[in-house]
Amino acid sequence: MAETLTAEQILDAAQDVLRRFGPSKATVVDVARALGVSHGSVYRHFPSKAALREAVTRQWLHRSHAPVAKAAGADLPAPERLRNWLATLFDTKRHKVLDDPELFATFTALVVENSTVVADHIADLTGEIARILRDGVAAGEFAPIEDVDRTARAVFDATARFHDPAYSGDWTRDGIDQAFDAVCVLILTSLTAQPGREVVQPH
Amino acid sequence: MAETLTAEQILDAAQDVLRRFGPSKATVVDVARALGVSHGSVYRHFPSKAALREAVTRQWLHRSHAPVAKAAGADLPAPERLRNWLATLFDTKRHKVLDDPELFATFTALVVENSTVVADHIADLTGEIARILRDGVAAGEFAPIEDVDRTARAVFDATARFHDPAYSGDWTRDGIDQAFDAVCVLILTSLTAQPGREVVQPH
Repeated sequence: MAETLTAEQILDAAQDVLRRFGPSKATVVDVARALGVSHGSVYRHFPSKAALREAVTRQWLHRSHAPVAKAAGADLPAPERLRNWLATLFDTKRHKVLDDPELFATFTALVVENSTVVADHIADLTGEIARILRDGVAAGEFAPIEDVDRTARAVFDATARFHDPAYSGDWTRDGIDQAFDAVCVLILTSLTAQPGREVVQPH
Repeated sequence: MAETLTAEQILDAAQDVLRRFGPSKATVVDVARALGVSHGSVYRHFPSKAALREAVTRQWLHRSHAPVAKAAGADLPAPERLRNWLATLFDTKRHKVLDDPELFATFTALVVENSTVVADHIADLTGEIARILRDGVAAGEFAPIEDVDRTARAVFDATARFHDPAYSGDWTRDGIDQAFDAVCVLILTSLTAQPGREVVQPH
């Protein structure tokens, strides 16, 4: 098997091992054993345990993000598209927690330990928001935005309660969907606002 | 001393004991010993360890909330008042973490273990936001709001990154003040918006 061993196979086995042993105990030797290969075969693809952990974390994030990325490109007016994107992000994360809480906890721990992965993931997400904002402004569906990237980050931050794993304990509570709707209305009212009254500027 | 022992003195001693021993180890006997009284004297004021822990947690929250409550009643137009209230909440919490991280961690743990205290505290905070919103609508400084309490909660949720202790690790990062400003602008633009364009309603 070692001869045809692919990075993909290693990542799948590593995910399995992480789920079984937990992120603090899983080793490269465990992954190699699960595949029936020597640990040298694993190291040929991933030069260190840290590199393997990072790769498996990125793969997990990438896979679970697929429906959200799709929502970013949906053929909808920008306000609906943003709302749908935020709802898809929330639903996807919520399902990940409910469907397999252990795996979610494992990967949340892995993500948190790797700040580059976190930063790249947030950059992807805010990039998708920025794209929707730009399209909306261009189509006249959103009011002009002075700094799109900054506003995209503000939208991301303002919805943290509905996508940050730190809040996953709240996601099954009564009223969480109403709370999500209220924040969406607040944000969309802001983005679609007619400029008119003066907004308090930061000091 | 036992004869003139007040609830206030017990709460101060309990805070001290909690700080020294940590929330999992501190006992009523430790508090009594620190005051030079019998544990019976403490129980005369607080019928159980849980009652004492709850009372000391409420006192800590109440004291640290004083500047925020003051900002809620400041003599300012509602948009500035809301912005100032949010900034005061953020600053107060940030100072608590930086000035005495151990005490902050201790009380965060105590607060989290007591869901009634959390619920009451959140009700106080969203109540202060609702009061500012109502004043602003009455003065024509905010656009009409369909459900003030719901919107107040949305403002609270949308700023979670800047007051929820789960994020305290972020509060000294570069760019956090800009991020806070951006979320404030997003919220205030929404509240001061001229109704005009249609907002996407929740499904």
